[in-house]
Amino acid sequence: MTINVQFSARPDSWDYFREPLKTAFAGHGLNVALSRDHDPASVEYVVYAPQSGPQMDFRIFPNLRAVLGLWAGVERIVNNATLQVPLARMVDSGLQEGMVEWVTGHTLRYHLNMDAQITDQNGVWDRVYPPLARHRQIGILGLGALGGACASALAALNFQVTGWSRSQKTLDNIRCLSGRDGLDEVLKTSEILVLLLPLTADTDRVIDARALALMPKGSHILNPGRGALIDDDALIASLDSSHIAHATLDVFRVEPLPADHFFWHHPKVTVTPHLASETRADTAAAVIADNIQRHEAGQKMKFLVNRKSGY
Amino acid sequence: MTINVQFSARPDSWDYFREPLKTAFAGHGLNVALSRDHDPASVEYVVYAPQSGPQMDFRIFPNLRAVLGLWAGVERIVNNATLQVPLARMVDSGLQEGMVEWVTGHTLRYHLNMDAQITDQNGVWDRVYPPLARHRQIGILGLGALGGACASALAALNFQVTGWSRSQKTLDNIRCLSGRDGLDEVLKTSEILVLLLPLTADTDRVIDARALALMPKGSHILNPGRGALIDDDALIASLDSSHIAHATLDVFRVEPLPADHFFWHHPKVTVTPHLASETRADTAAAVIADNIQRHEAGQKMKFLVNRKSGY
Repeated sequence: MTINVQFSARPDSWDYFREPLKTAFAGHGLNVALSRDHDPASVEYVVYAPQSGPQMDFRIFPNLRAVLGLWAGVERIVNNATLQVPLARMVDSGLQEGMVEWVTGHTLRYHLNMDAQITDQNGVWDRVYPPLARHRQIGILGLGALGGACASALAALNFQVTGWSRSQKTLDNIRCLSGRDGLDEVLKTSEILVLLLPLTADTDRVIDARALALMPKGSHILNPGRGALIDDDALIASLDSSHIAHATLDVFRVEPLPADHFFWHHPKVTVTPHLASETRADTAAAVIADNIQRHEAGQKMKFLVNRKSGY
Repeated sequence: MTINVQFSARPDSWDYFREPLKTAFAGHGLNVALSRDHDPASVEYVVYAPQSGPQMDFRIFPNLRAVLGLWAGVERIVNNATLQVPLARMVDSGLQEGMVEWVTGHTLRYHLNMDAQITDQNGVWDRVYPPLARHRQIGILGLGALGGACASALAALNFQVTGWSRSQKTLDNIRCLSGRDGLDEVLKTSEILVLLLPLTADTDRVIDARALALMPKGSHILNPGRGALIDDDALIASLDSSHIAHATLDVFRVEPLPADHFFWHHPKVTVTPHLASETRADTAAAVIADNIQRHEAGQKMKFLVNRKSGY
């Protein structure tokens, strides 16, 4: 029997995902009709990334069985009251690998003080050794699929990693903290702080003036998570006062970041244009095919979103 | 019985190593008189780093039992014909960790195209994704204690690592090659090439015009090994022709690298002032104490240099 899957995302996503999805459905033995233009009454699954503008009204799909997100972050879907069927996030090994590479690379960049080496080739043979990673404190806010993978990769390089998550976790070689006191503790000890929390009402502007003041003088921030985790004005004030030394930001409240935004032009901020993690078509298509296969077989889908906690 | 150990290195090394060595000797139960000024006739061990100027004449120590090098590289000791007792290299966990951090960091810097992100904050939201590390070819020349550790760290980040060594090796998740054909093969496939060979007559200028021409157009070179592994003029010619994209050099034929040297001023070269690896006093002192303890007990020392192969 044919399964009708509606693809609902931007046109460039269609070009990127169409063939990998067809390959993955066939590989899973699923007879899928994939289209952007099904009769809404016939649609059983929606592969979905929110677009700008008003929220989608899922009530137009009376026979909808589940929604498969293309993104790890679901803050723009989770509050959509018209969505009454199970929603799965994207947990893509390619996305996770790209995130680990970006976070590990920029952590080592700060650790080794690379920016000065790249920009100040001044002929001065000044041998200032960095400490070993085993003497460097890294904090990671968020220990989900992405934060946990980054924490493990940094610990494998001998960094002293402290992770924080809403609910207490246990990870090898990571000091795991939770709760409000735990958050203060990780902030106070992080020479480099990595933000990988989901965006919820609780985490909006979690990095505010108070949090920044708790961090050690001269510390660094990496934000590959969500732009709204940071109070932008408080960050700039802390950079200008030389309390926080530098920030590298990959995500922003408004994307694309406008060309005249102060982050582009601040000497202590590096902007990367949402490069840290990308859903990779081949691995992501396999996750979607696997989840549809599970749901068709009456099994629980992987990576289901808890609508109440928001992720 | 007291063991007389002569410390023969630069004065700043004495300041750096004196207390850690005393602590390590005591910790190993060795009764050592450590000095820079023993009567040569009484000296049993020399802790040694070559200084500039003429080679040391080890014949002044008639009761010498062994020499303990402070460096991983021994090319300035190994040909000293006056040295007739066992010679051990330094294989220091701290040095190894620092090398892994430098090599991993600069590999990720090239992999993620960080230089453009750091220097071109131009307000253009240009989302050009790097490939995943699993699709990036890294070559490492030299699979000793340092090269092998770097190869493993990069493979753990999913890079495709090909290693080359004079004698064939086997390392998990590393494609290991040897011989002249193997060298050509690793050169032809390396998008990023890391030089960690010992310096011998065979490896002097191993990276010459022919080797550079074999590398893929747009590839990158990291040299934390020894300056003389590279033919400097051939490298500059290859960079100027845009065949090799960029080089990061930590070691040089003459150190400190003179302030007017063309490497400092070439736009496609980053100089780091011999920072990639430093013998760390506490871990290195323990290696020396352990080796003296072994030799005193009639056991074979660790990290013995094969004087014939030169490392």
